Amino acid sequence: MMDASSLWPVVQDLRGRAPLVQCITNFVAMDLTANVLLAAGASPAMVHAPEEAADFVALGGTLSINIGTPSPDWVDGMDAAAAAARRRGTPWVLDPVAVGATRYRDAVVARLLPHGPAVIRGNASEIMALAGQRDAAAKGVDSTRASIDARTAAVELAGRLGCTVAVTGGVDIVTDGRRTIGLANGHPMMTKVTATGCALSALVAAFLAVTDDPLLAAVTAVGVFGVCGELAAEAAAGPASLRIGLIDHLYGLDGATFAKRLRRTE
Amino acid sequence: MMDASSLWPVVQDLRGRAPLVQCITNFVAMDLTANVLLAAGASPAMVHAPEEAADFVALGGTLSINIGTPSPDWVDGMDAAAAAARRRGTPWVLDPVAVGATRYRDAVVARLLPHGPAVIRGNASEIMALAGQRDAAAKGVDSTRASIDARTAAVELAGRLGCTVAVTGGVDIVTDGRRTIGLANGHPMMTKVTATGCALSALVAAFLAVTDDPLLAAVTAVGVFGVCGELAAEAAAGPASLRIGLIDHLYGLDGATFAKRLRRTE
Amino acid sequence: MMDASSLWPVVQDLRGRAPLVQCITNFVAMDLTANVLLAAGASPAMVHAPEEAADFVALGGTLSINIGTPSPDWVDGMDAAAAAARRRGTPWVLDPVAVGATRYRDAVVARLLPHGPAVIRGNASEIMALAGQRDAAAKGVDSTRASIDARTAAVELAGRLGCTVAVTGGVDIVTDGRRTIGLANGHPMMTKVTATGCALSALVAAFLAVTDDPLLAAVTAVGVFGVCGELAAEAAAGPASLRIGLIDHLYGLDGATFAKRLRRTE
Repeated sequence: MMDASSLWPVVQDLRGRAPLVQCITNFVAMDLTANVLLAAGASPAMVHAPEEAADFVALGGTLSINIGTPSPDWVDGMDAAAAAARRRGTPWVLDPVAVGATRYRDAVVARLLPHGPAVIRGNASEIMALAGQRDAAAKGVDSTRASIDARTAAVELAGRLGCTVAVTGGVDIVTDGRRTIGLANGHPMMTKVTATGCALSALVAAFLAVTDDPLLAAVTAVGVFGVCGELAAEAAAGPASLRIGLIDHLYGLDGATFAKRLRRTE
Repeated sequence: MMDASSLWPVVQDLRGRAPLVQCITNFVAMDLTANVLLAAGASPAMVHAPEEAADFVALGGTLSINIGTPSPDWVDGMDAAAAAARRRGTPWVLDPVAVGATRYRDAVVARLLPHGPAVIRGNASEIMALAGQRDAAAKGVDSTRASIDARTAAVELAGRLGCTVAVTGGVDIVTDGRRTIGLANGHPMMTKVTATGCALSALVAAFLAVTDDPLLAAVTAVGVFGVCGELAAEAAAGPASLRIGLIDHLYGLDGATFAKRLRRTE
Repeated sequence: MMDASSLWPVVQDLRGRAPLVQCITNFVAMDLTANVLLAAGASPAMVHAPEEAADFVALGGTLSINIGTPSPDWVDGMDAAAAAARRRGTPWVLDPVAVGATRYRDAVVARLLPHGPAVIRGNASEIMALAGQRDAAAKGVDSTRASIDARTAAVELAGRLGCTVAVTGGVDIVTDGRRTIGLANGHPMMTKVTATGCALSALVAAFLAVTDDPLLAAVTAVGVFGVCGELAAEAAAGPASLRIGLIDHLYGLDGATFAKRLRRTE
């Protein structure tokens, strides 16, 4: 399980069903996130205001919350949406950007976590900070640690919170505490494109709309994103070309290429 | 009238005069909107704060208001700008993103409409919702209805509000209640690029700066945008390439290509 | 001094050290700014909220503040960050977008200036407005004046405020009041890409992290950006292609090409 033959039908379901995905994300990631979701087949909607965030959850989509550029009114909207998601049983994704970097971000995450995200996606520093490893100092929003260093923290965190945790980086680790999957697609130049991790988190939320297994949703998103990123990087003159190719490949990827490219490490 | 020979001079005037266009738009559409306006020849400025939105209207540009990611402070700015536009006789465009999806959006639109937009541009679900057809359920920000289904609603709405209404989709309908124009340019892949409709609304505002006829402004914007979109789509590897090509064609489009491509359906 | 042989090591240092650069910028410029900084080798972080802006300055990066889409809560964050930068001795850059266009923007700049920016970057209208030349009417965010017309204003302003001032346009003028450097790279089509000036301001902040001489930082940023912009423009089908090429060239530029292309005018 969790190989290309079990992931590809999930990719196809997203394209066929075009589910609604509500995103409360940061200002940098808005454009890339919406375009990544559209290219992959979802119907994204950026809806953040406390005045309507919970009402929008009731329309029936899944939800992705990213704290990249937080402020009090936005956090109120995140809280309202996540609370509504919990009440309705809507699965949602948390992307705890730069948690550990400021006390404010720690407080924001502490407020959102009780609403029970189905999946948390972050880089190594973020996941290690969430797991209580305070020496995992990030450099701003970028990790200073290799993703594999966060494997233990991810498994522990997933088990403790009862959710799926995805750590992305050189190797991607996805775990629900019992099952742990490693993936090794992607390309180093992807770190030179802003908001790729943010967009990936929202893509996890899209796949949550077409499968009941959060681990499968996260692995599919990580696998497809990594394969498309490396295909794009191989043809790119630089990071801006890579970004264009990433989106184009998300739109056009076929099952044979996906199966040929996908690399599991565990 | 309303054929390529009457629209093209409007396109050229925009390039020649580079008018100021104030945009209060959503976070997803900021980048594409500004780049579309610059490529087409306008001078866009994103100015939304209540502290300066009305002062900026007094600088003499036209105005485009898009409610895609509304919140109370932004809506105060929209209201101040639209009120200033009404006082000065400045024509302005309203893009009622996802009206009908939440009560909050309905309230926002109800607050803005009395300021008398010259043009309203939306998808079929939005225009049908504005016309009071409550069964026109949208899926988030995306329409579930074909644009042609909204033709009657658009004509009725234009007549009732005394403005021009543009419904865009597979076929684009532009009407001022008396005259109704149909256009059939564009490409389905354009729906996989975020904020194309939002950018088109701002482009209508740009053309309002160079013609006194709102119908002509809207038809020109819809026609040019559709032609450039299909030119881009034909050469695109996917939606991100399409977006690049769309902007490049808006910059470089010539009159002969425009005349050859423009397709009126009524 | 201030030729390619003294600038290129600064470019290489940025790539080698990947310093943290905190940006408080406008909504239009977020995406381009982050991608420009990443491509050039920096580690950007967009952090604006008053709740954390000053804490983030304490992490040790440099700071770039751009007032393109100001509102009171954002200005509070700018003020807190700039004050923290002053206390710590962190060099920061001010981009006074459209100062002079509304009283609100004038008030925002008046509040930030006492915190002592190391570098101010603007277009001719902005720099002339800052220097007190009230006839330098801008058209919204775009300058109506040639950059060379602002040379005297820039030198006077730099001397009075004790900072470096960069005026960009057809010719770029960078001065600290004593030394004045002119550069003539770039391409007119760059004015058709939104937020290039904003991204350039943030790039100055990146170079402030690897040199103690603000004039050198500003000249390096202006030189590299101009060279990459003209390389991109020469191969571009339009402004969207130019933008892609600009970022790709920032990532891949080599020293020989830089030396061959860089054009000093004084």
